[in-house]
Amino acid sequence: MSAPVRRTGGRSAAVLSAIRYAVEELVRERGAEKVTIPMVAERAGVNPTSIYRRWGDAPALLNDIATYRLDPQRELPKTGELRADLAAWAGEIVEHYRKPLNAAILRGGSAMAGEQETDCLRNRRAEALQIVERYGPQAPLSADDVIDGLVAPIIYRAIFLPWTLGEDLPGRLVDRLLPQ
Amino acid sequence: MSAPVRRTGGRSAAVLSAIRYAVEELVRERGAEKVTIPMVAERAGVNPTSIYRRWGDAPALLNDIATYRLDPQRELPKTGELRADLAAWAGEIVEHYRKPLNAAILRGGSAMAGEQETDCLRNRRAEALQIVERYGPQAPLSADDVIDGLVAPIIYRAIFLPWTLGEDLPGRLVDRLLPQ
Repeated sequence: MSAPVRRTGGRSAAVLSAIRYAVEELVRERGAEKVTIPMVAERAGVNPTSIYRRWGDAPALLNDIATYRLDPQRELPKTGELRADLAAWAGEIVEHYRKPLNAAILRGGSAMAGEQETDCLRNRRAEALQIVERYGPQAPLSADDVIDGLVAPIIYRAIFLPWTLGEDLPGRLVDRLLPQ
Repeated sequence: MSAPVRRTGGRSAAVLSAIRYAVEELVRERGAEKVTIPMVAERAGVNPTSIYRRWGDAPALLNDIATYRLDPQRELPKTGELRADLAAWAGEIVEHYRKPLNAAILRGGSAMAGEQETDCLRNRRAEALQIVERYGPQAPLSADDVIDGLVAPIIYRAIFLPWTLGEDLPGRLVDRLLPQ
């Protein structure tokens, strides 16, 4: 009756790392929209079946890789203050998408989005909820507010205006979200 | 010394309409990322040179078509109240992207974004500025606030979560942007 645990060490981690490396190389070489699962499997030296089993299709794989440095098991910022937690968390996301490769993979993922919520978005929403809930029922924000007011503008800029992803962006967005 | 005026009637409008129709058909048939300018020219029965001259490349063409119903020369909502103007304006954008074809073209455009600001984004920013400036120096918002707090969440949802583009979204976003 125990919940399934995603293995993250040993052979599993080595395979994952080979797949990630292969995806990054292929996106750089051909552009995200041309990357297929058989191509990744060949480059990574793994069986395509195991990629299909874990991700289902290329969009899901790309979306996952696009955010893997934002490991869902990482520690979230925890300062004891909602404003500072959100700013630090948003800072990690901005930092991630300031890397041109991560933004390119995001754009490739966008082209194929729209059918269902991706793991990446689900993870960000779960994180937003986790941060907001620390501050109990008196928290002035819902997870949706955080997605609309913090994640959406960062992702919008990462896709369309990557040169505007400044270090001051998280602070400005949080100030707008939580007026003093 | 007069400013250049974009012709919008007569033969020019007929050509434009043929190009738009061709783009929409081709996106439906093949997906936005496969559409090329020669393909559009052939389908529309126009010379590829005139498409290249006006748009430069396929991403620019797609981005323009993706928002053509949001004609930059249309009248913007003007109710005499900032909150209502913004909600009506955001409502037009939501309405536009609730159409699956428009959202699909947006996704195709995203995949190719990131090099420079598109006409589409420039137009939305100009509109945001125009609305905000009506309310003079005491307006509690900048155009950037409107882009981050209103346009970004709509576009983010149109790309990744199109089923969440509800009719109540503009009102909720404007309430968050302009607390009462």
